[in-house]
Amino acid sequence: MSSPYRVERDFLGEKQIPAQAYWGVHTARAIENFPISGTPVSAMPDLIRAFGHVKKAAARANLQLGALDDKRARAIMFACERLVAGEYHDQFVVDVIQGGAGTSTNMNANEVIANLALEKLGFEKGRYDVLHPNDHVNASQSTNDVYPTAVRLSLWTGIDRLLASMARLRAGFEAKAEEFKGVLKIGRTQLQDAVPMTLGQEFSTYAVMLEEDEARLREARALIQEINLGATAIGTGINAPAGYADLACQELAGISGIPVVKSKNLVEATQDTGAFVQLSGVLKRVATKLSKTCNDLRLLSSGPQAGFGDIKLPARQAGSSIMPGKVNPVIPEVMNQVAFEVIGNDVTVTLASEAGQLQLNAFEPIMGWSLFKSIKHLSNACLTLHDHCVTGIEANHDLLARRVRESVTLVTALNPIIGYEKAAMIAKTAIATGAPIDEVAQALGILTREQMEALLVPEKLTEPLRLAN
Amino acid sequence: MSSPYRVERDFLGEKQIPAQAYWGVHTARAIENFPISGTPVSAMPDLIRAFGHVKKAAARANLQLGALDDKRARAIMFACERLVAGEYHDQFVVDVIQGGAGTSTNMNANEVIANLALEKLGFEKGRYDVLHPNDHVNASQSTNDVYPTAVRLSLWTGIDRLLASMARLRAGFEAKAEEFKGVLKIGRTQLQDAVPMTLGQEFSTYAVMLEEDEARLREARALIQEINLGATAIGTGINAPAGYADLACQELAGISGIPVVKSKNLVEATQDTGAFVQLSGVLKRVATKLSKTCNDLRLLSSGPQAGFGDIKLPARQAGSSIMPGKVNPVIPEVMNQVAFEVIGNDVTVTLASEAGQLQLNAFEPIMGWSLFKSIKHLSNACLTLHDHCVTGIEANHDLLARRVRESVTLVTALNPIIGYEKAAMIAKTAIATGAPIDEVAQALGILTREQMEALLVPEKLTEPLRLAN
Amino acid sequence: MSSPYRVERDFLGEKQIPAQAYWGVHTARAIENFPISGTPVSAMPDLIRAFGHVKKAAARANLQLGALDDKRARAIMFACERLVAGEYHDQFVVDVIQGGAGTSTNMNANEVIANLALEKLGFEKGRYDVLHPNDHVNASQSTNDVYPTAVRLSLWTGIDRLLASMARLRAGFEAKAEEFKGVLKIGRTQLQDAVPMTLGQEFSTYAVMLEEDEARLREARALIQEINLGATAIGTGINAPAGYADLACQELAGISGIPVVKSKNLVEATQDTGAFVQLSGVLKRVATKLSKTCNDLRLLSSGPQAGFGDIKLPARQAGSSIMPGKVNPVIPEVMNQVAFEVIGNDVTVTLASEAGQLQLNAFEPIMGWSLFKSIKHLSNACLTLHDHCVTGIEANHDLLARRVRESVTLVTALNPIIGYEKAAMIAKTAIATGAPIDEVAQALGILTREQMEALLVPEKLTEPLRLAN
Amino acid sequence: MSSPYRVERDFLGEKQIPAQAYWGVHTARAIENFPISGTPVSAMPDLIRAFGHVKKAAARANLQLGALDDKRARAIMFACERLVAGEYHDQFVVDVIQGGAGTSTNMNANEVIANLALEKLGFEKGRYDVLHPNDHVNASQSTNDVYPTAVRLSLWTGIDRLLASMARLRAGFEAKAEEFKGVLKIGRTQLQDAVPMTLGQEFSTYAVMLEEDEARLREARALIQEINLGATAIGTGINAPAGYADLACQELAGISGIPVVKSKNLVEATQDTGAFVQLSGVLKRVATKLSKTCNDLRLLSSGPQAGFGDIKLPARQAGSSIMPGKVNPVIPEVMNQVAFEVIGNDVTVTLASEAGQLQLNAFEPIMGWSLFKSIKHLSNACLTLHDHCVTGIEANHDLLARRVRESVTLVTALNPIIGYEKAAMIAKTAIATGAPIDEVAQALGILTREQMEALLVPEKLTEPLRLAN
Repeated sequence: MSSPYRVERDFLGEKQIPAQAYWGVHTARAIENFPISGTPVSAMPDLIRAFGHVKKAAARANLQLGALDDKRARAIMFACERLVAGEYHDQFVVDVIQGGAGTSTNMNANEVIANLALEKLGFEKGRYDVLHPNDHVNASQSTNDVYPTAVRLSLWTGIDRLLASMARLRAGFEAKAEEFKGVLKIGRTQLQDAVPMTLGQEFSTYAVMLEEDEARLREARALIQEINLGATAIGTGINAPAGYADLACQELAGISGIPVVKSKNLVEATQDTGAFVQLSGVLKRVATKLSKTCNDLRLLSSGPQAGFGDIKLPARQAGSSIMPGKVNPVIPEVMNQVAFEVIGNDVTVTLASEAGQLQLNAFEPIMGWSLFKSIKHLSNACLTLHDHCVTGIEANHDLLARRVRESVTLVTALNPIIGYEKAAMIAKTAIATGAPIDEVAQALGILTREQMEALLVPEKLTEPLRLAN
Repeated sequence: MSSPYRVERDFLGEKQIPAQAYWGVHTARAIENFPISGTPVSAMPDLIRAFGHVKKAAARANLQLGALDDKRARAIMFACERLVAGEYHDQFVVDVIQGGAGTSTNMNANEVIANLALEKLGFEKGRYDVLHPNDHVNASQSTNDVYPTAVRLSLWTGIDRLLASMARLRAGFEAKAEEFKGVLKIGRTQLQDAVPMTLGQEFSTYAVMLEEDEARLREARALIQEINLGATAIGTGINAPAGYADLACQELAGISGIPVVKSKNLVEATQDTGAFVQLSGVLKRVATKLSKTCNDLRLLSSGPQAGFGDIKLPARQAGSSIMPGKVNPVIPEVMNQVAFEVIGNDVTVTLASEAGQLQLNAFEPIMGWSLFKSIKHLSNACLTLHDHCVTGIEANHDLLARRVRESVTLVTALNPIIGYEKAAMIAKTAIATGAPIDEVAQALGILTREQMEALLVPEKLTEPLRLAN
Repeated sequence: MSSPYRVERDFLGEKQIPAQAYWGVHTARAIENFPISGTPVSAMPDLIRAFGHVKKAAARANLQLGALDDKRARAIMFACERLVAGEYHDQFVVDVIQGGAGTSTNMNANEVIANLALEKLGFEKGRYDVLHPNDHVNASQSTNDVYPTAVRLSLWTGIDRLLASMARLRAGFEAKAEEFKGVLKIGRTQLQDAVPMTLGQEFSTYAVMLEEDEARLREARALIQEINLGATAIGTGINAPAGYADLACQELAGISGIPVVKSKNLVEATQDTGAFVQLSGVLKRVATKLSKTCNDLRLLSSGPQAGFGDIKLPARQAGSSIMPGKVNPVIPEVMNQVAFEVIGNDVTVTLASEAGQLQLNAFEPIMGWSLFKSIKHLSNACLTLHDHCVTGIEANHDLLARRVRESVTLVTALNPIIGYEKAAMIAKTAIATGAPIDEVAQALGILTREQMEALLVPEKLTEPLRLAN
Repeated sequence: MSSPYRVERDFLGEKQIPAQAYWGVHTARAIENFPISGTPVSAMPDLIRAFGHVKKAAARANLQLGALDDKRARAIMFACERLVAGEYHDQFVVDVIQGGAGTSTNMNANEVIANLALEKLGFEKGRYDVLHPNDHVNASQSTNDVYPTAVRLSLWTGIDRLLASMARLRAGFEAKAEEFKGVLKIGRTQLQDAVPMTLGQEFSTYAVMLEEDEARLREARALIQEINLGATAIGTGINAPAGYADLACQELAGISGIPVVKSKNLVEATQDTGAFVQLSGVLKRVATKLSKTCNDLRLLSSGPQAGFGDIKLPARQAGSSIMPGKVNPVIPEVMNQVAFEVIGNDVTVTLASEAGQLQLNAFEPIMGWSLFKSIKHLSNACLTLHDHCVTGIEANHDLLARRVRESVTLVTALNPIIGYEKAAMIAKTAIATGAPIDEVAQALGILTREQMEALLVPEKLTEPLRLAN
């Protein structure tokens, strides 16, 4: 009967490893050391696929430069392809929150790939004398170049997905802007009634805002695609063959389909986490504006009787366990919460970046995890906001029209004719008495009703003034 | 003719000092080193007074323990009293943002006190052979115990002022809660109409919230009054006479009238900035809740025609340079902004605290400055909120009463009688058709109008149910 | 053959529910609405147990007050006990990040309990005409009192666990403080050599810091135990029988063993999230100080050849995939990252709290989830820091002793004898020339070697001065 | 005898204004309403100059479009030029922290300009019947387009200054990188000794980091130059003549010399504060990396006897009031504190941005003030870091050389020859015994001393491997 364990060793001693596990002694120590969140690295499938890409690119470069023989290189490449195909992800068991600058994730990958390659070559798991996690899978590499490169690749993929979600949401807002382009309403500044606009203009702002944020996100993505592969331990490229860095980057671009670029200064690139801070700052910007948008949607749909009531959101679920018939803006609310999380994550990323010391930042794991969550949650929230809310929004036409007719703020349009002070007097009197502004203007002897009617055509007030010649 | 300069020296060399300046060579170097914000330490008069108290307490303790002779001690005490009286604050010229863990502020104080004492003794400024900033004014002291002690004293004073401002604001809300206790209105959850309550209940929450925050602030103040005076450089009390720490703390409590207490472990106390983080966290809590309160006031007063319109805030200034008659909630808005600043300051304090290393935190100056601003701005904003807004708030009685009468959400009260599902059917139909709920209930054959009238007495709905026997 | 689905309905329409599911139509809608993080509420077992406690307490109170009959009440209580026992947690499938102020989690609980109770009574799942999720399980309740109460209960439990972890870590530091109490070393301020202390004094500070933080955490826990059960929708207690709030709180304290207390003002308590902000602020303080402690451990163990090297941390795993034999401070590093996460979470909680509006804060789900993670991760990180790092720390005795002997900073002790300026001259010369301070003092004619030897006994320099009579 | 007061009135009533004041009734009300920080708007001279530019551009456009007559337009332009010239800034007395979306600052500007123009025209101050702050100075404008435009202009100027400061600091680091390019040292990752590099490589990273941040800052500046001038109240351009927006923007670019661009969607631009969030995020990135750089400088210069001691910072001031001869890294410390402030300010800006509602963000004043401080303090801190620290840094050549010779981590270079496991065995033994690695390798029978010597040429280890053919 075969043993349920094999024994592996490193320079700290021996350790029993479950026989069926593809991971080995380094991973086993990490499991003991980091029982923090209970969430394993396999929760980030993009990251594991990225490791597959990176290790394969390294193997190809090593093969070409003579740092790996053909047999081992091909076995390693085969193993990497398994990860890219989504297989064996359950072997990535290290906690997402881990010390050691990502070494445990890298060694987890090195061990899984080594054992998959050994099996491919017809050997048992653990036969590292034949193919070694460090000497062969990790050849010409260090955690300090491989880990950030893989994290960047995985974020790139995530950003791509987020961009698609944002574009979908933007299209939703654009459609509503078109649908509502003829719907007049009273705008509001500082929550007080302001001058007329269209509901279409209002919804167009949400689309424009997303469009601008997509542009910012693309800029941040361009920084993320700069990698330090080939830097090895501290950027000097120690133990990598001459020419390796360029070749490995080139291979990686080809394999992954992501236009990665080698950093100009590898020593700097190895310690620098500025691109993560920049990306996080942009995600925070996206979050801030989506939260503002959802605040607006919640305000505009407040009521149904005692609120703003400009629009109606689609009913998605019973709003209350006690108040029958109540419908709440639950979809915007979930976006708000995602935004608050993303803004908090930005602080986490900032602190982790600031804490880097000398030739390395040991805190990339929490940066990667925080950014992963921010991107994923924003992307999902954009989709649910589009699918379950924006597409079903309706205007309260009658209420909006009535408010425009009765609005005191129309007096603003009289400024160029009668001046700010007289217009203010009309407004103040109208609000105090409840009388319509044309009556007030007439009573105060400022303008006649007929003059008022000619001047105050709300439709004309939503664009700049045509001065009479 | 006398020279406009005197020459002072330290172990880095000589320096010309303006003849009339009470500060000396250490301050002069700090002026050159820290041209950051342009705001001098004199912007914090509480801190300078606190230095007066601390240095006087130290002198008294030194005198009693034989570490200072009578003549020098009395001259130093005289000088300290000048600072406490508010004199010579313009001599505190070092930037509020400074490196060096507060050494520059401490040396600024040592030099000003030394020169004031020298003048009192009949000597010229700069005659440190007679009375020395380090050997005499700073005797038995280090920046590392004196500076945090003075900062804490000054914060204690500021908190006291803030507590008074909060109490004033609370009284304003309590008065409104009393005034509005009979005013029925529809409550709102998630910005959607909920069940009835009184406007008095609503305003009482703002008072209770402040009361609780005052209690938290008192707890934080109790931590601030723990000091490390006598710890000297790193908490071991090197160079202070035995018994000095206890005596100096006791003297300081007497002189300042603030119940300071000596920390149990002076090594820990010298490096620990936990009390600042705690205080900052509580200030952030106060800010968070005051911001929520002001958000509510702005929501409740939104309109005048197209908003919630539950209440009216007093008009304090013209709201717009273009929209005549517009009145904006400018006073709540300024509190919101102070709150955002305080929440940002909390992050600053947190980072500065986390950055402490080994036996000292070198970043206390930015903590002190951030906390000073948070306390001062919150205190001022509470006063303006009370004086210029809360006291003048009026209820829109008619609108509130009408909304209660017409509210669909009153069906909630029917749950115990007809069940959630039937009540929901009534609500849904009423909202869709615009018909009153009693008509709907009758039309659906669920309850008669008479039954509805008997059940739905809004006044009774603002408190728990009296179940019929 | 039985159908794989049953049909449930609410006022939005019908929905197919998997036949074996204990959750129902409200949960089904929430699953569709909130596909955000992929983490279900079952990731927080404490919260589900807390719901079991709360719903049971409500049922008992309802039974006593005549709002539930005996049969239904007992079936509900039976179901609640299943949840408390850890059963059926997989039925809590709603995303942890959800809109709707927790209504979906509450309805998930109401539905699971209703169906468990129905089965107990011999009915099929979905027979809500017999026992209804809203009318019976949720009787006298609203999400707005039940959900925050359950969240608070679950946090209370988590804090208890964190306190135990912190106490364990503190004991570890105390043991080291005792072990190292005779080990002299040079203290450091601003990363520059300062005066002597013992390594025991240094480690004692980490213990004292934890002790103080435990006290703060207990204070925050006391606020968390204030609940608004009985407030129902907005704090007015609508639909709850008179006396219910007091009775339900009392029952809950008995059932859960947690000393919960009813808030004084239920309207305020229903909208107020100040206790969450306070707790989060204290967790941030804990994080800040643990991060500082771990920064110190990493600094003190830096090297082995080119760093501070005061102490050695136990080797826990190979530090590098490329640098053989390298051992890194991976355990302190994981605590740093948890701290950064907790500080970020605090910002999330603050934003969510600030965003509350009028009678409710709709964003409690993200607050609860953020606090849950902060508490769990801190607790786990304390345990791993204790078990895998602190207990194995060793002092580098020889190096520490040599540095004390050779230290220039010992001149500080000469201040009271020769004054600051002469002492500075000795120090400056010694650093520039590399000569020992006693030689320098003699060469400069300030003190003889014999005088120096008598004055500079490092052991005596770790406490206040005994002045010669 | 002339009265010390004149009387002005707005729609809220009359108010006495000091006769010599150029500001008027709106400013007077704002002074009463916002006694918050005590810092007046005049603390931001760039902002006042920007108002001068904006109001002049508006006047020129109004003149060309017939919305202002020649006489008034020229008087207004004359007044604007006074502000641009730095005159009358003391008339800007409103608090920097103010409610009302900047209306008070705009009205302060309108009033000062109106009264300066009146004087120019030969009228007394307050003769608004002749030339009116709203009708003429503010013609075709609203606070909601003028204020953000002026804030953006002033930030643009500040960024320009910051870019120059960063370039100066970068040049300082580049010079040191060149100076130290031949100085070998042991790199460090995770504070543990790593592989060799040059001190020049280390300093080059600080220069590269700044170069990248300058590029990011330029991108952010490009967003800041998009303005909404002509949008008036809510972006619809109400009350502005057709063509005004384009013309005013064009005039402003010409007058200010800043390449401002009109936003594509003025409704969106009027409510959007994304550019401020983006800028703040980039400033946070700059701060994060400068703080990391200063942390490094403090670490590398730690000692002089018990620290890293790789470099010496220039002595700038006595480090301690008690420890004679102690020199502290006070200049890097002040940069750290500025960084903490900037990171906190970013949270403030984020909260203020998120709080915008509907057609406007009322919280731009705190955003502008926070960004102003961040930019100014960073700029000043860069200059002091360059002038007072970086230029004077010296290498500790002997210590660095000795450490490279003795370093155990050189075994890394043996991986490609003997494999990771054997290399680890050598390293572990060397650290445990203190014996040099060549002796250990020989004793373990792995490599001879001669082989070791040939392999381990530290100079060669600072770049990729030349594989033997």
